[in-house]
Amino acid sequence: MKIIEGGVTAAKGFKAAGTEAAIKYQNRKDMAMIYSEVPCKAAGTFTTNVVKAAPVIWDRDIVRGKGTAQAVVVNSGIANACTGDEGMAYCRETAETAGKILNIPYDSVLVGSTGVIGMQLKMDRIKAGIEKLVPALDDSLQAGTEAAEAIMTTDTHSKQVAVSFEAGGKTVTVGGMAKGSGMIHPNMCTMLAYVTTDMNISAELLREAVSGDIPDTFNMISVDGDTSTNDTFLCLANGMAGNPEVTEKNEDYEAFRKALNYVNTTLAKAMAGDGEGATALFEVEVINADTKEHARILAKSVITSSLTKAAIYGHDANWGRILCALGYSGVTFDPDHIELWFGSDAGRILIFKNGKAVDYSEEEATKILSEKTVHVTADMKMGDASATAWGCDLTYDYIKINADYRS
Amino acid sequence: MKIIEGGVTAAKGFKAAGTEAAIKYQNRKDMAMIYSEVPCKAAGTFTTNVVKAAPVIWDRDIVRGKGTAQAVVVNSGIANACTGDEGMAYCRETAETAGKILNIPYDSVLVGSTGVIGMQLKMDRIKAGIEKLVPALDDSLQAGTEAAEAIMTTDTHSKQVAVSFEAGGKTVTVGGMAKGSGMIHPNMCTMLAYVTTDMNISAELLREAVSGDIPDTFNMISVDGDTSTNDTFLCLANGMAGNPEVTEKNEDYEAFRKALNYVNTTLAKAMAGDGEGATALFEVEVINADTKEHARILAKSVITSSLTKAAIYGHDANWGRILCALGYSGVTFDPDHIELWFGSDAGRILIFKNGKAVDYSEEEATKILSEKTVHVTADMKMGDASATAWGCDLTYDYIKINADYRS
Repeated sequence: MKIIEGGVTAAKGFKAAGTEAAIKYQNRKDMAMIYSEVPCKAAGTFTTNVVKAAPVIWDRDIVRGKGTAQAVVVNSGIANACTGDEGMAYCRETAETAGKILNIPYDSVLVGSTGVIGMQLKMDRIKAGIEKLVPALDDSLQAGTEAAEAIMTTDTHSKQVAVSFEAGGKTVTVGGMAKGSGMIHPNMCTMLAYVTTDMNISAELLREAVSGDIPDTFNMISVDGDTSTNDTFLCLANGMAGNPEVTEKNEDYEAFRKALNYVNTTLAKAMAGDGEGATALFEVEVINADTKEHARILAKSVITSSLTKAAIYGHDANWGRILCALGYSGVTFDPDHIELWFGSDAGRILIFKNGKAVDYSEEEATKILSEKTVHVTADMKMGDASATAWGCDLTYDYIKINADYRS
Repeated sequence: MKIIEGGVTAAKGFKAAGTEAAIKYQNRKDMAMIYSEVPCKAAGTFTTNVVKAAPVIWDRDIVRGKGTAQAVVVNSGIANACTGDEGMAYCRETAETAGKILNIPYDSVLVGSTGVIGMQLKMDRIKAGIEKLVPALDDSLQAGTEAAEAIMTTDTHSKQVAVSFEAGGKTVTVGGMAKGSGMIHPNMCTMLAYVTTDMNISAELLREAVSGDIPDTFNMISVDGDTSTNDTFLCLANGMAGNPEVTEKNEDYEAFRKALNYVNTTLAKAMAGDGEGATALFEVEVINADTKEHARILAKSVITSSLTKAAIYGHDANWGRILCALGYSGVTFDPDHIELWFGSDAGRILIFKNGKAVDYSEEEATKILSEKTVHVTADMKMGDASATAWGCDLTYDYIKINADYRS
């Protein structure tokens, strides 16, 4: 597997574009389109929030229904959530408008929205945006980057990644883009992430690869514990790499899974590290737990602890808060038997053992907590299951961004 | 029922004191004692955190074991959590020291701690503190107030309340004190709360009254979602009111329950409203839910949402975040059928109905969100169960307080 430049336009046959459509704000890109020259198999996962935005329902029905799609239209000004029947009608109108210009069926157009909840879309602007996007569609790196920029809300930078590998004698590419950066919490892919691939793979295995990967990637990040109404992860596979169709779990399937996992992990970590107001990526690894599920719960409990996140912001080795967060996770363990380590392979120090703090260096601990990525390892000493979760610190800027997001 | 002045010294036969013992900080009260002239029946609830502080284990064993106690010793500098066997030995030493001077058995002395996790107590200071507290014990309002002040950590004011009522021809008093104000989250009484009463009541009914009340009072508040290692609620009943012992659920029992509920609700709301950095009490009432448990989960989900809490701080009527938090609570409902109201009985406005926003006045909404108590009502239209949860806004000061709490 090779890491290459680009994002959603890296794989063969995929084009993208981003444009300013003044959906809510002036002078910023706020609409994006992804288009494949041929129809794609589509797999996706969606928010588990009972309150689902209209585009989530629209996409879910297409992905779970006919299971193919050829284009995605996204706006990042208004979420189209809590908008009633009107909101659903907007999705159809968006898809119909794009379908007509692209000359594809309206139910091959997926729709994404992120932004303010409760406001209604101005359809004339959406339509004008689509009319600008279609002629701008391009398979260049630049076009993919502009699409990645156009789906941003409070993100401080765009997020894209691509990898390639060999399968059936052909080069296969998987690329993706994603946006955060608030209302982000493990439970379904978080916010918007779009992955495109030219892999030729059966619909069933595509779905299986996607649903197998999300629990360890997008579902392991959290910025603020709020699971959005709009969370959407979509993977489009157009088969244009020309490899023989993957229909069983052979080494080509494993290569695809590995590539997908790399793309998803990279995008997920980028989201967490660019969480609203964040100054650091907070990476918590739980090892030797009794079950995988328990490892996930423990790791997520720590990255979502407000007190721990505030301590990371302050570069304060307040490890008691980590112990506390493990303790209220709901998983049972013996505090006297676990170990807590600060730092990554580059240099780790033992903090807690036998039910109390060891004699560690505060200076060294503070140094580790001042890195751009703060890594903590909890060794549960109960079994061999492990999991990693990614969050960020809790800062003044999170408050600033969210105390008055609408205005 | 009559609201009266005072706290833990309001009921007959209870004395208290607070003093400076330099447990961690200089020049502030940091040790408190409560003492009853006669042995009390003791009921309590404790943190559900797997990581339990030593004093929590100490108190739990006494309350669930012999079930009586006569004194409580609290320090507010060091939590004595994650301190191993040493921490347990400190509890015993504290109880033995107090027991000897007070001339009561050591296992009649309950111990409470709050503060930094992981540090070991300096026992010489604890002992010196006890030696100062005993001669200062007094049944005055002033003494109770000093005790309430001495258990504070990041609280901005002390919290106490007392009520009296008639039972069996006698005046019975229930009074209490509590402290917050971070690491506070529904799951067991939150942080430290001590209630004293001179009610003559059987141990069984005292326990039942306590365990029946906590789920609707202390377990319905949250400051930051972090369930502490030290949460402790204790209720001591010394019977000195002289009423015939309450041994069945008659009207005297109901009067006691009502008084206890008032004291606990008042202390719980005071904790939430004085949450770290808070500028407002955030009160969420869920009505017409299908079950009581669902009503509680829904209400708690809203008060714990970081995004909603930040919006409250900004006086921003971003009601979509409330809908979102109801939606990810885990409770199933139809978003098209619920109603959302801002404001209390003094003046409520409808915000959301039939799956979308109604045409409300932003100005009026902002005014409601600028009150010292922000009240939101979610009408689920599913049944007749209701619950209220109390939280606070999320502010710059929360970050400031917690980014470097240890130093």
